Amino acid sequence: MSTQTSREALQALDRQDPLARFRDRFVLPEAVIYLDGNSLGPLPVGAAERAAEVVNEQWGQGLIRSWNTAGWFELPTRLGDKLGTLLGANPGETVVTDTTSLNLFKALASALRIQQVDGPGRRVIITERDNFPTDIYIAQGLADLLNSVTTETGVDYEVRLIDTQDELLAALGPDTALISLSHVNYRTGRMWDMPAITAAAHEAGALAIWDLAHAAGAVPVDLNGADADYAVGCTYKYLNGGPGAPAFIWVNARHQRRFWQPLSGWWSHAQPFAMDEDYAPADDARRFMCGTQPITSLAMLEVGLDVSLEADQHQLRAKSLELTDLFIELVRERCPGLGLELVTPQQHAERGSHVSFRHPHGYAVMAALIERGVIGDYREPEVLRFGVTPLYLSRTDIWDAVEILREVLHTGAWQREEFTRRNAVT
Amino acid sequence: MSTQTSREALQALDRQDPLARFRDRFVLPEAVIYLDGNSLGPLPVGAAERAAEVVNEQWGQGLIRSWNTAGWFELPTRLGDKLGTLLGANPGETVVTDTTSLNLFKALASALRIQQVDGPGRRVIITERDNFPTDIYIAQGLADLLNSVTTETGVDYEVRLIDTQDELLAALGPDTALISLSHVNYRTGRMWDMPAITAAAHEAGALAIWDLAHAAGAVPVDLNGADADYAVGCTYKYLNGGPGAPAFIWVNARHQRRFWQPLSGWWSHAQPFAMDEDYAPADDARRFMCGTQPITSLAMLEVGLDVSLEADQHQLRAKSLELTDLFIELVRERCPGLGLELVTPQQHAERGSHVSFRHPHGYAVMAALIERGVIGDYREPEVLRFGVTPLYLSRTDIWDAVEILREVLHTGAWQREEFTRRNAVT
Repeated sequence: MSTQTSREALQALDRQDPLARFRDRFVLPEAVIYLDGNSLGPLPVGAAERAAEVVNEQWGQGLIRSWNTAGWFELPTRLGDKLGTLLGANPGETVVTDTTSLNLFKALASALRIQQVDGPGRRVIITERDNFPTDIYIAQGLADLLNSVTTETGVDYEVRLIDTQDELLAALGPDTALISLSHVNYRTGRMWDMPAITAAAHEAGALAIWDLAHAAGAVPVDLNGADADYAVGCTYKYLNGGPGAPAFIWVNARHQRRFWQPLSGWWSHAQPFAMDEDYAPADDARRFMCGTQPITSLAMLEVGLDVSLEADQHQLRAKSLELTDLFIELVRERCPGLGLELVTPQQHAERGSHVSFRHPHGYAVMAALIERGVIGDYREPEVLRFGVTPLYLSRTDIWDAVEILREVLHTGAWQREEFTRRNAVT
Repeated sequence: MSTQTSREALQALDRQDPLARFRDRFVLPEAVIYLDGNSLGPLPVGAAERAAEVVNEQWGQGLIRSWNTAGWFELPTRLGDKLGTLLGANPGETVVTDTTSLNLFKALASALRIQQVDGPGRRVIITERDNFPTDIYIAQGLADLLNSVTTETGVDYEVRLIDTQDELLAALGPDTALISLSHVNYRTGRMWDMPAITAAAHEAGALAIWDLAHAAGAVPVDLNGADADYAVGCTYKYLNGGPGAPAFIWVNARHQRRFWQPLSGWWSHAQPFAMDEDYAPADDARRFMCGTQPITSLAMLEVGLDVSLEADQHQLRAKSLELTDLFIELVRERCPGLGLELVTPQQHAERGSHVSFRHPHGYAVMAALIERGVIGDYREPEVLRFGVTPLYLSRTDIWDAVEILREVLHTGAWQREEFTRRNAVT
């Protein structure tokens, strides 16, 4: 692709954009181009009103009665089902609860428990070295816990890190319990082929867990189509659920009745209010839960979800790819020799919905951009990351962002500002 | 104690109550006597405004920048320190995060890990049969997980349930890893002697974990004074944090550097944004955390906490005991022969801040009470539970509640209404 385009030409395209109307569904500050919706999505119109309703009416007036009368009990499964329609899930397979880290722990524990029966001796968890760190840490934590009491055979649980797809495929073997991958990489935006990788895992007798943190609401996902085993993910990025909104967990229906988790809190019990002294898991998706959820934060998520559900998912993907293509091409044309190195795959099939560039002074460059209202973020090492969210960004936003990036780099403004900041600190 | 009192005499006492002014710090619906603040505390004045500020200003305008500019990163530890002052904790020992169930899992895992070094062979977790069920289930879940891989020696982890203090003391022995108790029982309101029981556990080489769900903000707690090892608890009951507000965990400073949890998410890492591939826990209370917290629900908690912190804790305890005494005495005087059996201890030292009565038709009786604006709750089996919260209840509230209870029982109204409800369903 070569654009050789102009801001005017992009404006003309924006005017014909069938998704343009969604821009007004979000509150965005003046003079900001928000390229960090993959870290925290913006405030949807109506979310503040929802929070006020939950706090003033449901909590303030309804008090404890609102667990029933305002449907608080059903929020995790009801919102899970809504979210599931974006992920190729059937009703009853998804719940919104806890955090991504915790849900991953549940999925890992459940998968290992299944392998203790189906594949004893399978004790290797394969994940990416470049996975989001919490995904690695949680696997290490679970393996560490199990190894603390496996004293007999020397067959310890192991977290094996791979760097490439070839390494992943070569690592799959008779000792593999599961693979745990992020569908879209948080730093590079690189996307795995979920159906192919899942099939390879199954071929080797392993289970496949997918973290959809940077995928849900950003790229087409079909969990049942891909025959995935477990998925977890985040709702405060592309789903615009609000800061720290609860995460989700999906379990393939074939595993549901075998799903077992050590975080066996009362919300996952078959009869939470029977006050039995023995744990017995619910026979539906409630068994993926643990304790009481933060209702105000949880309820607001629905507003963001509803916006995503209104949009045509094919149009979203097409516009996302158009915008990321545009970003890449504009940087190539307008920022040559300015030290930016693309780290996001150019193949559409391998790209999520953000674009990233290395720059040796990435941190200072991003600080200068944010100072000018272009809000992206910085990820170690040296990576400038730009979330490209087709619901509320336009082609001219991308043009303007790249222009400001060019200016910051071309004029060396980032360098002077870094000098000023350092002097201010010392 | 015998009251033989009158509503007028109680009104006179209410007028002199130094805590009476706190009633106006809460939004409470008209025509409701709220006796379920031990399940969900009411809305403090200012909490709705706090939520609106977080949503509109911090999320809507600040966007991702608010993690730094609005102090979101520090909320769990900053609110933890505030809360800690109510619990006899020092700064840096408490964090507000996740749910009580999850925090208990962390405490159990950490205590067992310490015992693997300090007391190998100690594999028994002692808890109460009448503990809140999630406390039992979480211990069962962890034991189950560990036992799934301990194949060699037959020394399995075991959750042992006791019914009485004598049984507890007799059960302590060389195989005890830890005791896990609720300071105040959720159903009966019975309170353990934390210093004495902790000392007995230590004497036996065991660690002591305390669940303060029905204690924090309700009764005097001095964790360091009692030399407890771990504590967890809930903020949406007596601390009035809002529905599902995040819970807390406290760890005795002597264990902090050894604290290890398998829920080792990135928020507990020494450098969460360094994106290291190996887990290394933070050297402060952040190591008790796991993933990203629900900011709106978390931020609102501060409003409730601030109200509790303003009140004199000795006055609160004195009024709580006065009100529970009054409730018990009024029931004795005014409801004889109506089928109510007190299950809450009469000794002050053994009583929390709620009173409970068994009634063979407890569920229907509570439904009739709620219908009349007296909101308590029902707990299996047959228990009517009344939370007595001195911050916003008066002596006349207790009088009126008992009068309505008497009328419901005396007239058999509960029975007619139950008949109507059943006919309505079929």
